[in-house]
Amino acid sequence: MTFHSMWAELLPIGRSSASGGYRRFAWTAADAECRAWFEEQARTRGMTYELDRNGNQWAWLGDPAQGDAVVTGSHLDSVPDGGAFDGPLGVVSSFAALDELRARGARLDRPLAVVNFGDEEGARFGLACVGSRLTAGALTVEQAHRLTDGDGITLPQAMEAAGHDPEAIGPDPERLARIGAFVELHIEQGRALDLSGDRVGIASAIWPHGRWRFDFRGEANHAGTTRPEDRRDPMLPYAETVLAARREAELAGAVATFGKISVEPNGVNAIPSLVRGWLDSRAAGQETLDTVLTAIEKAARAHAESHGVDLDVVRESFTPVVEFDHALRDELARVLGTDTDLKVPVLGTGAGHDAGILSGSVPTAMLFVRNPTGVSHSPAESAAEDDCTAGVSALADVLEGLARR
Amino acid sequence: MTFHSMWAELLPIGRSSASGGYRRFAWTAADAECRAWFEEQARTRGMTYELDRNGNQWAWLGDPAQGDAVVTGSHLDSVPDGGAFDGPLGVVSSFAALDELRARGARLDRPLAVVNFGDEEGARFGLACVGSRLTAGALTVEQAHRLTDGDGITLPQAMEAAGHDPEAIGPDPERLARIGAFVELHIEQGRALDLSGDRVGIASAIWPHGRWRFDFRGEANHAGTTRPEDRRDPMLPYAETVLAARREAELAGAVATFGKISVEPNGVNAIPSLVRGWLDSRAAGQETLDTVLTAIEKAARAHAESHGVDLDVVRESFTPVVEFDHALRDELARVLGTDTDLKVPVLGTGAGHDAGILSGSVPTAMLFVRNPTGVSHSPAESAAEDDCTAGVSALADVLEGLARR
Repeated sequence: MTFHSMWAELLPIGRSSASGGYRRFAWTAADAECRAWFEEQARTRGMTYELDRNGNQWAWLGDPAQGDAVVTGSHLDSVPDGGAFDGPLGVVSSFAALDELRARGARLDRPLAVVNFGDEEGARFGLACVGSRLTAGALTVEQAHRLTDGDGITLPQAMEAAGHDPEAIGPDPERLARIGAFVELHIEQGRALDLSGDRVGIASAIWPHGRWRFDFRGEANHAGTTRPEDRRDPMLPYAETVLAARREAELAGAVATFGKISVEPNGVNAIPSLVRGWLDSRAAGQETLDTVLTAIEKAARAHAESHGVDLDVVRESFTPVVEFDHALRDELARVLGTDTDLKVPVLGTGAGHDAGILSGSVPTAMLFVRNPTGVSHSPAESAAEDDCTAGVSALADVLEGLARR
Repeated sequence: MTFHSMWAELLPIGRSSASGGYRRFAWTAADAECRAWFEEQARTRGMTYELDRNGNQWAWLGDPAQGDAVVTGSHLDSVPDGGAFDGPLGVVSSFAALDELRARGARLDRPLAVVNFGDEEGARFGLACVGSRLTAGALTVEQAHRLTDGDGITLPQAMEAAGHDPEAIGPDPERLARIGAFVELHIEQGRALDLSGDRVGIASAIWPHGRWRFDFRGEANHAGTTRPEDRRDPMLPYAETVLAARREAELAGAVATFGKISVEPNGVNAIPSLVRGWLDSRAAGQETLDTVLTAIEKAARAHAESHGVDLDVVRESFTPVVEFDHALRDELARVLGTDTDLKVPVLGTGAGHDAGILSGSVPTAMLFVRNPTGVSHSPAESAAEDDCTAGVSALADVLEGLARR
């Protein structure tokens, strides 16, 4: 199984012919196809296959019970109409790197595993990294049981329908205790490597980030007959807040985005009664993020008040800054630095990852592969073949260095 | 059947206990209940009941074949979570006015009818006044056959499911030729009568109005990792356009509203690829409306361009100004002016009505009943009992005046 043939097998799964993007959502038929592919990869290589209690898949080389394992991998699910690389590049590169280690006849003193974390994108149930969060105890069983998709199907119902026991989920400290290092390779979700001219980079940290829901409540009314001065139109302070978010984020060197909205009654000739907008904001440091948020909320409140609109702001999720393990990061830089073809810039990222969740329990590192347009969560996401190959080699080098005691 | 008992019978039909508003959409079960109520009213009064080819209901007093009929009525369907008065007040007041004429022993030289026009609000298929448009030939059969609801059900399929033959629809000039005058009583959808202190008013004209779809197309991308300068975020020019619409409308004394939006992919952590906003705009005159539209579109194009976003603006519907028949309007003013308890201001309206559609074929007039808050298309819409009674009396006076040759 070459990188190419693995990639070609995954490409058609869950692809929408309408958008050209992927719809591989947790516990759906497309997800099951991806999982069958993973299991097949493990079996083809004579690796020990495991599906853990939280729906994460593991392929083992060597005896996991030995402990201090070196684990690599990523996820196979996607955002709605996502690209082909976000997730799958890490899983395919992991198997390809193991193949390269075998071809090199590398000495493997520690057990190695490839992992596919379940439900990383959170596209279906609205919470990212469910598989790794459950394992790490960062999501309680009660919270997980309350997760519901857009059709009203709960996570336990979806798991059960896919043949997975929802009563088995929960923290799995024994499994984490076996892992000595976790390395996740991922396509870069920005243009830092493109701008610096590098194929591969090492992650320093994941920016603190969060999601806030802004509920602007006004009064439904007839769009044709209600005088401007009699209106309490929540679309107006929403629009002001969208613009304030962009302005404040730019000022602070952060990002702040309103990408999701829900409007009631959402009629062409009706002034809305409710405009609900979701803000995603991230910054390199906590203080910066706090400053941006305070400024956006202040602007939102002032504009809501001036339009006679009520405003509730609810923080739906928040992840503090994740600093990846410094020793492991330095080890990666040392290993990759010996290859003179590679420069290895160290860069921060605004995206969350399973590696970020695991970093609380396990020494964790990340490798990024160049994405020439920086586009992410879109079918336009891409990586050149040479860069993918460089990513596999870098990952193989890293794993070889770590697996040799 | 008093006004009260008729009103009480209609009140529970299609009412959402969640919102307190009405969901009486064309050709649904709630619509069928309203229609059964109408037919029952006709039968109870010994009136001749007819369901026409386009799904409009008629209750006749006298022989329609005699011609030069005086017709009154409105509609029973609602917008999503609409109020109880918009439509039903006109139908109930029509029956109550006929009862009052009979009680007075009024001389009726012309045939009289009460009408319930089908699918006035367009809540289900997106086009208002389908019943009257088809009858007047303002909507072709081919256009009507292409109308589709949010679940992909076409108008013909919905009609058929409700037991109505969709092949029978189409222009009905013979029916219109029988009508000598049409008077629609409607709750006011604004505060003009409240501000002037009048119970009842007469319509002068319906403002020209239209709906425009603004498609802002950018590039889907990761909200956490894409630098502001690399974004093509369509939510930003949308927000600018919402604010421009309000500003330009206020400057011109018009109204312009973005009340409906559709976003793709509508994910919390995704910069949208598409923000589609619908603009509803109306003004007292065509020239004013043109000026407002030109200014809004210009602002939208400038902001789209500055964000690297493509913009298409599509006019989805447009209705020119409707000036109600002057002779009939003056006749109404004369009749109502003889009652010293009533002042009858003449006012324009921004809302479309079946009366506006019919005015091209038949001398048409409208009466408005005071709505103290001006709220419309919302459960908060209301009219005081005394004002409803004044409306019925005014309509009875008008009908008596017209029916006497």
